[in-house]
Amino acid sequence: MPDPLRSFIEVAPDSHFPIQNLPFGVFKPASGAARVGVAIGDQVLDLSVLEQNGQFASSEFKGQRVFSDQSLNRFMSLGQPAWRQTRAVLQHLLAANTSNLRDNTHLRAQAFHAQRDVVMQLPARIGDYTDFYSSYHHSHNVGTMLRGPENALMPNWKWLPVGYHGRASSIVVTGTDVRRPRGQTKPPDAAAPVFGPSRSFDYELEMAFFIGPGNPLGEPVPIERAPEQIFGMVLMNDWSARDVQAWEYQPLGPFLAKNFCTSISPWVVTMDALEPFRLALPPQEPEPLPYLRAQNDSTYNIQLEARLQTATMPEPHVITRTNFRHLYWSIAQQLAHHTVGGCNLQPGDLLASGTISGPTEDSRGCMLELTWRGANPLTLPNGESRKWLEDGDTLAITGWCEGDGYRVGFGEVSGRVLPA
Amino acid sequence: MPDPLRSFIEVAPDSHFPIQNLPFGVFKPASGAARVGVAIGDQVLDLSVLEQNGQFASSEFKGQRVFSDQSLNRFMSLGQPAWRQTRAVLQHLLAANTSNLRDNTHLRAQAFHAQRDVVMQLPARIGDYTDFYSSYHHSHNVGTMLRGPENALMPNWKWLPVGYHGRASSIVVTGTDVRRPRGQTKPPDAAAPVFGPSRSFDYELEMAFFIGPGNPLGEPVPIERAPEQIFGMVLMNDWSARDVQAWEYQPLGPFLAKNFCTSISPWVVTMDALEPFRLALPPQEPEPLPYLRAQNDSTYNIQLEARLQTATMPEPHVITRTNFRHLYWSIAQQLAHHTVGGCNLQPGDLLASGTISGPTEDSRGCMLELTWRGANPLTLPNGESRKWLEDGDTLAITGWCEGDGYRVGFGEVSGRVLPA
Repeated sequence: MPDPLRSFIEVAPDSHFPIQNLPFGVFKPASGAARVGVAIGDQVLDLSVLEQNGQFASSEFKGQRVFSDQSLNRFMSLGQPAWRQTRAVLQHLLAANTSNLRDNTHLRAQAFHAQRDVVMQLPARIGDYTDFYSSYHHSHNVGTMLRGPENALMPNWKWLPVGYHGRASSIVVTGTDVRRPRGQTKPPDAAAPVFGPSRSFDYELEMAFFIGPGNPLGEPVPIERAPEQIFGMVLMNDWSARDVQAWEYQPLGPFLAKNFCTSISPWVVTMDALEPFRLALPPQEPEPLPYLRAQNDSTYNIQLEARLQTATMPEPHVITRTNFRHLYWSIAQQLAHHTVGGCNLQPGDLLASGTISGPTEDSRGCMLELTWRGANPLTLPNGESRKWLEDGDTLAITGWCEGDGYRVGFGEVSGRVLPA
Repeated sequence: MPDPLRSFIEVAPDSHFPIQNLPFGVFKPASGAARVGVAIGDQVLDLSVLEQNGQFASSEFKGQRVFSDQSLNRFMSLGQPAWRQTRAVLQHLLAANTSNLRDNTHLRAQAFHAQRDVVMQLPARIGDYTDFYSSYHHSHNVGTMLRGPENALMPNWKWLPVGYHGRASSIVVTGTDVRRPRGQTKPPDAAAPVFGPSRSFDYELEMAFFIGPGNPLGEPVPIERAPEQIFGMVLMNDWSARDVQAWEYQPLGPFLAKNFCTSISPWVVTMDALEPFRLALPPQEPEPLPYLRAQNDSTYNIQLEARLQTATMPEPHVITRTNFRHLYWSIAQQLAHHTVGGCNLQPGDLLASGTISGPTEDSRGCMLELTWRGANPLTLPNGESRKWLEDGDTLAITGWCEGDGYRVGFGEVSGRVLPA
């Protein structure tokens, strides 16, 4: 049996970023402009340096230099052959028994930065952002609160991946504080709405994927070809103002309740890194229409947690434990549906899952469900209780795939709530 | 009394583009890259030439050269002082009694192109696009069809400008054919949905405005300062697949029914050009909350028409005659509401009105209303009838303000329906 893939860079056993992962991100070093890098252990490998060194000059790159860019958009647009070639080059160069980079002290000094010394940026310029509603348990729980268990799901829910267009401009990277929004809300007993800070401020545990080359307007992506369009995935927190949402959302959907801030993790984990954790999509009943059916359609075994730390807690407390596999619709189905009428996707577009809840109470992915609209407040280890997020609370979402002796992880997306 | 403002460029009396207008657009000349121009009569004045000639070097331009760009985004970001300075320079240079440009044969040959010789582009890279639902008559008509006249408007409708995020990537410029989308629909008597071409393909007569400098995330734009953020306006056709919409839209709003194509006119008419046609906003009852109230809030007297020409008709036939003044919510209210929770707007973002219908039957801005969901088909002058748009139909929207002896117009947005 061969040794497991191992890097000359030391990687802690619980690190999210072993050589099996190699997620892409955009970082700003202590001095100089932002550029593209890959996480390995607690280091960032600067791909612009390796590119200048001639490592990415094969035909897959179409003569383009893409790693000095301040976003991943051009790399995403190159498509799967370039993504795979880059991964192959990096897994070779970083391997314990490859000497080229390992023994080149000068190149190593140029190419590696400690992660603690860099500032992560948004990985892409996000042209359009779409949010789906693909968790059965989340949709069922929310529908039950609004309409009772018999009418919890709308008639369309099991026929198509319900989704809506979100706001791209207010997507921020982990570590950005989020200001509690003000807005119109209407208390049930009031004759008129009132204006003020949202009183039911929530998180939503989600994941999202980035689009690669994209498709021209009017040319749908058939579901069998969807995987070629998917560059990789990140964690997302779709911060939500529930009271604003309740008053505004009919009949055209959420608007100000969601568009004040959406946070994502900075490292984009590629589909090739997730490949060992692919699972068959559970059977869907009713059977989807043909344009939503693919041979071997897949989901992924990704463990997900949300952790809450109030201003007075010494450490975060896990309030959600769930898994990406609980989603009803696959990402290939989401993508095929999105384009079936001709909508064009572009490099860097972001498609999100919607809140990911599982079947158990502790696997619910937002406060709305965990506290059942505030009826059952959470009790935290230090005795505090929460119906919703309060000012000063920090909410972090993390996720990883558990390999045999290693983890392929997503790092985290974290944000602290500032007062309105 | 002074002579009316007049240009040395001949302008037909019914032209949309006299010297009083001077709308901005992005055009591609017969040879060379796209750049910024202004329409005057049947000509385009190339601003990149005047910029190289040193005409736009005053402090308002902050040392930037913006007119060789292939979009208006950077010019939009400069703000009202630069927009006004440009207008002042152009109204001076183009005036009949100013000799600088008029008598400079060489510069004139460089700077002017016949509009028929250039190809108009999208005026801006549109980062985010929002569509409001601000016509009382449209919302009331649609609500009446769905829920009866007593419940036509949702309780929130008169308290806030209802809106939703649309798809930016599929916004196209006039003249682009639009392909009838395929999608899921559910016939009322069927047990399951079916997939196929939309059978109720519609237009929506709208107008939209472009954002100027924008606001940082978390910093709302107070309504009194909204006008500084509004660069100018265009015509819009928000093509819609009504049968797709009916099946998909609950609970998160329209998605595939709208995102396959949205068309706009290429010339952006500035708010300064529209100033003579400003009207007081009619009283709103109930009185809006304070963040939606401005001294002297305004609307505009803009006449709007939609014209249908089927494949066999010799000329277009007007099917909608309406006016921008029929909108209930002002554009300042839309902008203030959009940002009140902290959402950031960016240069080139587009905010649309929603379908503009008036109080009379012939002022309804879409087939859904004109034919009352197909119950009362339109009869066209050649004897054809239409419940919805059919393949080969061309739908054009035009709009203008009627001045004293001149028109400030928007040109048109036109598109032809291709089969699925």
